[in-house]
Amino acid sequence: MAKENFVEQIADIEKDFPQWYTDVVKKTKLVDYGPVKGTMVIRPYGYAIWENIQRELDKRFKETGHENAYFPLLIPMSFFTKEAEHVEGFAPEVAVVTHAGGEELAEPLAIRPTSETVFGNMYSKWLQSYRDLPIMINQWANVMRWEKTTRPFLRTSEFLWQEGHTCHATEEEALEETMKMLGVYKEFAENCLAIPVLTGKKTEKEKFAGAVATFGMEAMMKDGKSLQAGTSHYLGQNFSKAFEIKFLDKDGVQKHAYTTSWGVSTRLIGALIMAHGDQRGLVIPPVVAPTQAVIVPIAAKKGGVMEACYQLKSDLQKAGVRVVLDETDNSPGWKFNEWEMKGVPLRIEVGPRDLEQGKVVIFRRDTCVKDFYALDGVIETVKELLQAVQKDMLEAARVRRDERIVYANDMSGILAGVEGGNFVKAGWCGCRECEDKIKAETAATARVYAEGETAETCAVCGNKAKHMIIYARAY
Amino acid sequence: MAKENFVEQIADIEKDFPQWYTDVVKKTKLVDYGPVKGTMVIRPYGYAIWENIQRELDKRFKETGHENAYFPLLIPMSFFTKEAEHVEGFAPEVAVVTHAGGEELAEPLAIRPTSETVFGNMYSKWLQSYRDLPIMINQWANVMRWEKTTRPFLRTSEFLWQEGHTCHATEEEALEETMKMLGVYKEFAENCLAIPVLTGKKTEKEKFAGAVATFGMEAMMKDGKSLQAGTSHYLGQNFSKAFEIKFLDKDGVQKHAYTTSWGVSTRLIGALIMAHGDQRGLVIPPVVAPTQAVIVPIAAKKGGVMEACYQLKSDLQKAGVRVVLDETDNSPGWKFNEWEMKGVPLRIEVGPRDLEQGKVVIFRRDTCVKDFYALDGVIETVKELLQAVQKDMLEAARVRRDERIVYANDMSGILAGVEGGNFVKAGWCGCRECEDKIKAETAATARVYAEGETAETCAVCGNKAKHMIIYARAY
Repeated sequence: MAKENFVEQIADIEKDFPQWYTDVVKKTKLVDYGPVKGTMVIRPYGYAIWENIQRELDKRFKETGHENAYFPLLIPMSFFTKEAEHVEGFAPEVAVVTHAGGEELAEPLAIRPTSETVFGNMYSKWLQSYRDLPIMINQWANVMRWEKTTRPFLRTSEFLWQEGHTCHATEEEALEETMKMLGVYKEFAENCLAIPVLTGKKTEKEKFAGAVATFGMEAMMKDGKSLQAGTSHYLGQNFSKAFEIKFLDKDGVQKHAYTTSWGVSTRLIGALIMAHGDQRGLVIPPVVAPTQAVIVPIAAKKGGVMEACYQLKSDLQKAGVRVVLDETDNSPGWKFNEWEMKGVPLRIEVGPRDLEQGKVVIFRRDTCVKDFYALDGVIETVKELLQAVQKDMLEAARVRRDERIVYANDMSGILAGVEGGNFVKAGWCGCRECEDKIKAETAATARVYAEGETAETCAVCGNKAKHMIIYARAY
Repeated sequence: MAKENFVEQIADIEKDFPQWYTDVVKKTKLVDYGPVKGTMVIRPYGYAIWENIQRELDKRFKETGHENAYFPLLIPMSFFTKEAEHVEGFAPEVAVVTHAGGEELAEPLAIRPTSETVFGNMYSKWLQSYRDLPIMINQWANVMRWEKTTRPFLRTSEFLWQEGHTCHATEEEALEETMKMLGVYKEFAENCLAIPVLTGKKTEKEKFAGAVATFGMEAMMKDGKSLQAGTSHYLGQNFSKAFEIKFLDKDGVQKHAYTTSWGVSTRLIGALIMAHGDQRGLVIPPVVAPTQAVIVPIAAKKGGVMEACYQLKSDLQKAGVRVVLDETDNSPGWKFNEWEMKGVPLRIEVGPRDLEQGKVVIFRRDTCVKDFYALDGVIETVKELLQAVQKDMLEAARVRRDERIVYANDMSGILAGVEGGNFVKAGWCGCRECEDKIKAETAATARVYAEGETAETCAVCGNKAKHMIIYARAY
């Protein structure tokens, strides 16, 4: 690919975080803008992260008993009107196909913004008896939500995601599934993306259109804002009643099933950029990094250097490490900058003098520390370092986040908290009016209920608090 | 899932092949019809085959230097008009988005029927120098072509596919890529799907709209009809001129790149059903089979049977075999029918008497032959049998096909040949009029040029033949 000017300044992460983000995603070739406003092209480097995310999640979905399938992109507009809240939430955002095959369609078709309705329609045909339950299907698909303001990965009119849709005989089972998948997401976010997340119930205002209850996971970005990184919805019988998803139970009675849905999207790529990135660019956790280690030859023409590099590359590949040997004619300094910007977890520098002493230099992207390591046993060292990077990135993110969770008793405390780039915990009486007021005056929203915590009074009205809420400004 | 009546007759494969196909895809739960006419829901059993196809192909694409990416679903209608043949070929089939976000769009947007135009648009931005070449990107995506007559997997308004799009500095390199990917498809079809394919150039009439030349692979179905199972296009500079895909070459001159595209789709699932299926249902080759072996306990309540089954299942899983233990309370006979219909390559019957003698029965779905095997060493036996099934299925399909390739010298010979369910090789003068005549009178089309073969005269006009063509009726 063409050389791009890597030393060109990325915007200051402290002073202009949004521009820093835009610079990083473009310069590292994660993404580009598509020809239609609000769309993105996920370039190979970005897509490789998505493939790693998919592999890790898909394994977890299958381990928890789910199967993949594929449901149609186009949904009759009439389907949306069957669930009253759902149509209100999604109708304003849909893209509509009115013509096809050279003719006007009898009924306009929506490009799916989410697929509860079409899964519901099919499940009503497939489900007959309690023996058919549970039905647990996931799909990996593109969806479309027409948004006014868009940013690559964070909010685009089209994005990629997975959506799980399950049917159960009882409320208990459906709730258990809802919470289990929230747990799968949390474990994945922490162990694969190295992002510590806060999980909990969402308020009525923030829940999914059509759900009985939505549970979300919230991740803190480096600017202190929150990013909703995944949601799991308990849908009760809302969709099963709208779509007649019924079964003959053991007791001989026809009953409506209880359903759930849950999803994460290419937003997760935005999350990992903003949770870990720094002034030099991306910092990608090893589990999802397209390249886990890059080998940079120093004084490549000196005897033995390239031979050692080839051997190292081959040995690392055999050990299952995703490794690149940078053989371009760029200078080592250029290469250092480029691969640091791309966020590759480890850089192995192989030079003639170190080789003579049986050593290599390994640079850790997360700590930006480099050190000498014996060439003998270096494969094991690299594997251990990758594990250490993964673990330490999570720990560092956790420390950063925990330092920025504060408490407030009143509105000015919430405002000061979020202005300072914090998550703010505060009491809430439970009424919509107070929730709206906080958004109007602080630009923060209720992210999730703080599990297991209670407050005395509502930070807005001063009445008795029913819940402790985590407020933050959010993406 | 609910019991379905598996003993219910599937239509006679000899007498009504189309109905046999419909019965099999529905009863085995590969697919269902979507709510919008012409769309399909790929159910978990069908999607699991697609996942195996994807895994095998994706590995091959990466081994040949390609990267995955994701390009937008929606394409400005104006893009299609930039390449004259392309718009003529695809405009009549596109689905058009005219409204989004509650407003009418300034320019209508097409749902991609194929993505040469949007890849072209982005490549023109990314490509600057000969150093950037080649660009070799593939995407896995959904596409939409509004068809009047549809059948699950074979022709649906929406389907899943992969589309590779590459850019090269020279005609030679682009042609080499075109042929290399045709070769990858052929090797995959034979070694993974166990389908022997005929590959070759397509006539001008049958080529891709916008290509300089299209190369296809054709597979014979059990009714003697042909199914186009994949295509690889040499696009020359047609799209690079339409989209200004240019680079500064070594010699300092701005040049248009040479491009290719190539794709296979969920049609391949239809191909493997119709290439291998029989009166009992599906016969799935082991490499892509969702379940490679099913264990059926006989007299499950007898001591030791279930223990042996659990042990066997666990050992097979450890050996990497995709295995299911059927623990339902259906009778063994019912289970035999069900799993035979589902096309699982091997059935292992574990009964108390055989166990006493240290034996199990293994049934091969491809040959419908069963035999005794020693329990000691059965894991190796299963692995060997799976390999044998894979190999023998290809060989059997090759024999079936080769018996049904005939030669003809005139139109009545072609008609008799295709009516008899054959591929027919015949000479062709090269003119469109003769090609059209054959279609009109025999319902057969020119599938591919018969590589390396020549004929004396055109079967239609009797003039000197320029090519030998393989004619067939086709899906």
